[in-house]
Amino acid sequence: MIALFTLFVLLAFSSATSVRYEADWKSLDTRPTPDWFDNGKFGIFIHWGIFSVPSIDFDHNNHSEWFWSFWKINQSPKYVDFMNKNYKPGFSYADFGPQFTCELFEPDQWADIFKHAGAKYIVLTAKHHEGFTLWPSNYSWNWNAVDVGAHRDLAGELKAAVDRVGGVRFGMYFSQFEWFNPLHIEDLKRKPPTRNYPNMVSYPQMIEFVNNYKPELIWSDGDWAGDADYWRSTEFLQWLFNESPVKDSIAVNDRWGSGTWGRHGGYWNVMDHYDPGHLVGHKWENCFNLDRYSWGYRRTMTSSDVRTMLELINELARTIACGGNLLLNIGPTADGRIVAAFELRLRQLGRWLQTNGEGVYGTKPWIYQNDSNIW
Amino acid sequence: MIALFTLFVLLAFSSATSVRYEADWKSLDTRPTPDWFDNGKFGIFIHWGIFSVPSIDFDHNNHSEWFWSFWKINQSPKYVDFMNKNYKPGFSYADFGPQFTCELFEPDQWADIFKHAGAKYIVLTAKHHEGFTLWPSNYSWNWNAVDVGAHRDLAGELKAAVDRVGGVRFGMYFSQFEWFNPLHIEDLKRKPPTRNYPNMVSYPQMIEFVNNYKPELIWSDGDWAGDADYWRSTEFLQWLFNESPVKDSIAVNDRWGSGTWGRHGGYWNVMDHYDPGHLVGHKWENCFNLDRYSWGYRRTMTSSDVRTMLELINELARTIACGGNLLLNIGPTADGRIVAAFELRLRQLGRWLQTNGEGVYGTKPWIYQNDSNIW
Amino acid sequence: MIALFTLFVLLAFSSATSVRYEADWKSLDTRPTPDWFDNGKFGIFIHWGIFSVPSIDFDHNNHSEWFWSFWKINQSPKYVDFMNKNYKPGFSYADFGPQFTCELFEPDQWADIFKHAGAKYIVLTAKHHEGFTLWPSNYSWNWNAVDVGAHRDLAGELKAAVDRVGGVRFGMYFSQFEWFNPLHIEDLKRKPPTRNYPNMVSYPQMIEFVNNYKPELIWSDGDWAGDADYWRSTEFLQWLFNESPVKDSIAVNDRWGSGTWGRHGGYWNVMDHYDPGHLVGHKWENCFNLDRYSWGYRRTMTSSDVRTMLELINELARTIACGGNLLLNIGPTADGRIVAAFELRLRQLGRWLQTNGEGVYGTKPWIYQNDSNIW
Amino acid sequence: MIALFTLFVLLAFSSATSVRYEADWKSLDTRPTPDWFDNGKFGIFIHWGIFSVPSIDFDHNNHSEWFWSFWKINQSPKYVDFMNKNYKPGFSYADFGPQFTCELFEPDQWADIFKHAGAKYIVLTAKHHEGFTLWPSNYSWNWNAVDVGAHRDLAGELKAAVDRVGGVRFGMYFSQFEWFNPLHIEDLKRKPPTRNYPNMVSYPQMIEFVNNYKPELIWSDGDWAGDADYWRSTEFLQWLFNESPVKDSIAVNDRWGSGTWGRHGGYWNVMDHYDPGHLVGHKWENCFNLDRYSWGYRRTMTSSDVRTMLELINELARTIACGGNLLLNIGPTADGRIVAAFELRLRQLGRWLQTNGEGVYGTKPWIYQNDSNIW
Repeated sequence: MIALFTLFVLLAFSSATSVRYEADWKSLDTRPTPDWFDNGKFGIFIHWGIFSVPSIDFDHNNHSEWFWSFWKINQSPKYVDFMNKNYKPGFSYADFGPQFTCELFEPDQWADIFKHAGAKYIVLTAKHHEGFTLWPSNYSWNWNAVDVGAHRDLAGELKAAVDRVGGVRFGMYFSQFEWFNPLHIEDLKRKPPTRNYPNMVSYPQMIEFVNNYKPELIWSDGDWAGDADYWRSTEFLQWLFNESPVKDSIAVNDRWGSGTWGRHGGYWNVMDHYDPGHLVGHKWENCFNLDRYSWGYRRTMTSSDVRTMLELINELARTIACGGNLLLNIGPTADGRIVAAFELRLRQLGRWLQTNGEGVYGTKPWIYQNDSNIW
Repeated sequence: MIALFTLFVLLAFSSATSVRYEADWKSLDTRPTPDWFDNGKFGIFIHWGIFSVPSIDFDHNNHSEWFWSFWKINQSPKYVDFMNKNYKPGFSYADFGPQFTCELFEPDQWADIFKHAGAKYIVLTAKHHEGFTLWPSNYSWNWNAVDVGAHRDLAGELKAAVDRVGGVRFGMYFSQFEWFNPLHIEDLKRKPPTRNYPNMVSYPQMIEFVNNYKPELIWSDGDWAGDADYWRSTEFLQWLFNESPVKDSIAVNDRWGSGTWGRHGGYWNVMDHYDPGHLVGHKWENCFNLDRYSWGYRRTMTSSDVRTMLELINELARTIACGGNLLLNIGPTADGRIVAAFELRLRQLGRWLQTNGEGVYGTKPWIYQNDSNIW
Repeated sequence: MIALFTLFVLLAFSSATSVRYEADWKSLDTRPTPDWFDNGKFGIFIHWGIFSVPSIDFDHNNHSEWFWSFWKINQSPKYVDFMNKNYKPGFSYADFGPQFTCELFEPDQWADIFKHAGAKYIVLTAKHHEGFTLWPSNYSWNWNAVDVGAHRDLAGELKAAVDRVGGVRFGMYFSQFEWFNPLHIEDLKRKPPTRNYPNMVSYPQMIEFVNNYKPELIWSDGDWAGDADYWRSTEFLQWLFNESPVKDSIAVNDRWGSGTWGRHGGYWNVMDHYDPGHLVGHKWENCFNLDRYSWGYRRTMTSSDVRTMLELINELARTIACGGNLLLNIGPTADGRIVAAFELRLRQLGRWLQTNGEGVYGTKPWIYQNDSNIW
Repeated sequence: MIALFTLFVLLAFSSATSVRYEADWKSLDTRPTPDWFDNGKFGIFIHWGIFSVPSIDFDHNNHSEWFWSFWKINQSPKYVDFMNKNYKPGFSYADFGPQFTCELFEPDQWADIFKHAGAKYIVLTAKHHEGFTLWPSNYSWNWNAVDVGAHRDLAGELKAAVDRVGGVRFGMYFSQFEWFNPLHIEDLKRKPPTRNYPNMVSYPQMIEFVNNYKPELIWSDGDWAGDADYWRSTEFLQWLFNESPVKDSIAVNDRWGSGTWGRHGGYWNVMDHYDPGHLVGHKWENCFNLDRYSWGYRRTMTSSDVRTMLELINELARTIACGGNLLLNIGPTADGRIVAAFELRLRQLGRWLQTNGEGVYGTKPWIYQNDSNIW
């Protein structure tokens, strides 16, 4: 009896303590994908930020969340015209800030929709390439949702709401780089390159967010602008897997620096809309937009831009058959709503999953994926 | 044979020229409903105005287009709270004006949707009870869409667009009274009552609109606050039927003063959502909202608030079986869009009508309506 | 003795009751200037309105209160450029409305300044040519200071404050015409000309203002666009002198229709800055601006644009020596302040008048005016 | 002849090169005050920033530039009420940003005023305690005048304008601390204290500003929240005196960390309004406000709040008699103007200095200061 108890204690101790990861890919890549993620199969991606204010794209080959870049980097004529026509001369992207009001944002209503959609996790753009943080980051002063616009901790409120509704885990999308952060731009120009931006902004932001909001998934992005060393990715993941408050349950993707996609980190996202069509041998995720032309909300979205139920079920089936998860994206509005056209699909999908969930959640891919019975 | 032909010609001639209406119901009520209206069966109602800015209701027993009244006349607590929470102290309804921007209003896109929905006419709230005119009325200076907000002649642009697309006639919804027009309020207080408001505002506005925009339907409303004498209704209709540029094709409803509903004017609207369920013996119209809780757009509308295709087809069938027309309402947004959730239904209905239109357009009710084959 | 006393009583009685004016100049012109006006000598003119929002002029040959006209009628390039550079495309004059906030308007502070300046009356632009009323006029709905911007009855609050401080009478500047009122524009175009604008707007506004605010002076302006018949001036003055609540104390000027200046009405203003330099034989008033380049406030006013004390005292002396009153103008700001540069002069003048008032108030011009001792 | 020339070259060389300062006060304090500063005697201080938007104080014991602190740190009731009454609920200080428009800022006009005032230098609040920078700082992204509001490099434009006008040197006021910068707040909380804020913000900002704008004076402030080590002051001054592009002409004050006032750095400011009344034995400066109640512009400033010419001349005489310089402060408006009440005094003082400048510029204090001939 004593012996058995001791053994149990030893085992428990060893499982919790003996796996310590080193700050290199060789070690970090040995960490298994958390079961909850593998079994969950279906999550919801949420693109929300200052880009939700202009909330527009042109020509359907652009995404509304890239507005700032199309306008100021590409100086794409339709974007420039849109601003010239509708805004005061000199209006800047920062001037959109006070219009990101979110006054109709009801986090419990969102959580209810996600729950009824059958999603097992959500991934919120806590910070997109614009650098605006949906939480009050110490490293993004006066450029976050508490200081400007909504005056609310949007990330915190949403986290609390999904916790209340239960069964839906909270994940953080985080852009490593920021198009216009002068520290990052400076880093790139300098010879030898400096690392002021990751040291002063991106790295401390990830630590801050994990400690304060305890996300169970980190969806890193915007990593291509530097290598994993620049972003201090292995150092961060070592801390995340060994020390952080979510070390046991955290799932991460594979965008941790140029060259890491499909090779390092956690599960694989590879490219957006990744859908290999065959068994990959590594856990992966297909991020897929409900508005076929954008991640961020587009005010000009028509009904035919919204994926049909058939498309969604087909994509879900293809994805899980090959061992992936489907991360279905919606873009809320600047006043804080999930529009009816999106909510409809989420609820329809939820009803379908209520009936067919047995064949989805917790399943393992079969050795064949392409037989005609599946898709 | 010759004699008969001559007689026919004489009759035809007389019907086109000799019928001059008097300014009394006895005469006016003899005017037949225009064939285009009777045959059209299906129109689209458009509630759009300053109320599209706050664009909200509470408790589902209110309509978003009545915002001003709920806020300031009823002082309904949820409306008052909404304003207190989201607007600067002292913010007035007139202050919403500059926010009615309509910057994404593409009238040709709207006309395309209406055409593909199978609608034979549209009815635009050229002026709702708030008094704001969607055309640059001389009698509503600085309280119209050209002076304030959009800075566009919304009515004129929409009229031109439906003319371009063809096959869809343009109608004007017009509120006789205005909740807060001080001239009207004064008229009601004075003993003996004055008629300054109709003389200075509502009557000249109707004349102005008909002369400038040549609508083929006038959907009078807000008439309950006075009798037909106060509104000068018979005088107006006499001009409309005898002299106006649309005298031959114009259709009108029955809301021309307290006590006229279901009795005088043109076709019958009676109450909103009028659906008698039996043959009425007089042409009538069922105005029916696509968002079951509001005429004006509600930003908080959920997918289940939108009527299903089954409901719509059922309502259309019930209505035309009893000799009515269905006027299906949508509420565009303050930035000028028909949201995807509405557009979807309109296009779905259009596809259904493409197949089943033969049983809809130009039909005459059968002697029985309630047999189980129909609904 | 008895007889004499009786005669006096009869005369007094008759003067109060038996003088009834007819609606023609011959009769109206017989009304004497009220003593308070003749004795007062010094008043303050206040140009305040929506023009106080852009609050700018160009080239010093324009007045800031004519902004709308320079911008839209003259399309003066500097005004057009100013708008293009600083405002959203399509911005209209009505859009300035919500920015006329007056949040720092302290009427008691103003009254204190006027009192200490030694002014015996003030004249407020209750309505300038823009048509915006500083009181909640029933005839200018949604284009007045209660419906839009300040959300305060600016005229009413100022009237109450000067009543509280005592010794300063309240006067109303009123523009008969409005540059852009469509009713007035229509009236001018029609053959034969109509009078809808005076009937529907200007005439009832004067009656409304006099009844509600009991001004003791009416400073009519903008009368050149029509003759006295069009404005119904003699009819109005008959009512004002016979029936109105201020019939005994009211003073009026001479701008009551083209051709009336310096001929009919009450005291003479003739042209702005009227300063005949000799005895005129009729009571007159010299309206004179403290900012030498504008009546409305100009944000770009420099210290040398403000008249010096020497200029002011000289002008006051010239004016009263010739039997005139000096009406010294200031332009308050859109947020409701009299700026320090104006307040300084008013208080300086007040101190001068405290010492020298004996030679100002209640004086009668001598038979010579131009001897070197005076100016 | 050759020998003499060689000697001269050697001396010149040694003066320019041999003095290298160490990063300690003992060394830094040996640097002499630049002659231009000692001789200049009279400069103009400019308090301009986001605080110029609310531009208000209450009770005359506050300064308008401390608005944010009175509102949010002290939660002073009148400030809280002002915000509650005039702004939308939740309005933040950052929301004032877009209203700092500066659309009437004409830097050449300002430079002309300063020149004609007789000022030999100006000191601009390039950054006050609010942290908003009037230049596009890489270390204050989206919280500077190019990203937000004016969309202009206000510091750069003013520097260029004073260079064009000539004879007026450009100085930088710089607040070391920022009330609400979360990095600074964190530094103070941590045990042991960190230095993230100076490392990431204040130190690099000073380097950036000096390199880009080459100010000839740095007026450090807000230093009391840390010691000179925390701010890296000696390190900065060593760079400034040895390496920077302004190493030869730069003047600095004495606010470089708690305990340094009146002891270390360059000339002494000690407290605001420092006016010792006797010879101090060290170059010093008296910063003195033209509006006696505030440094930042107050919209509610009255004429009697503006110092009189007598006060100004008296203060200037007292100051230079005791070896000080007078730094006279003005607060421009949020739309970029120096109001007439300030401009008047500056021009009056300039005229006085044109006559009396011989007794001001370049003078040395006499051994007695308090004889009755001077003040």
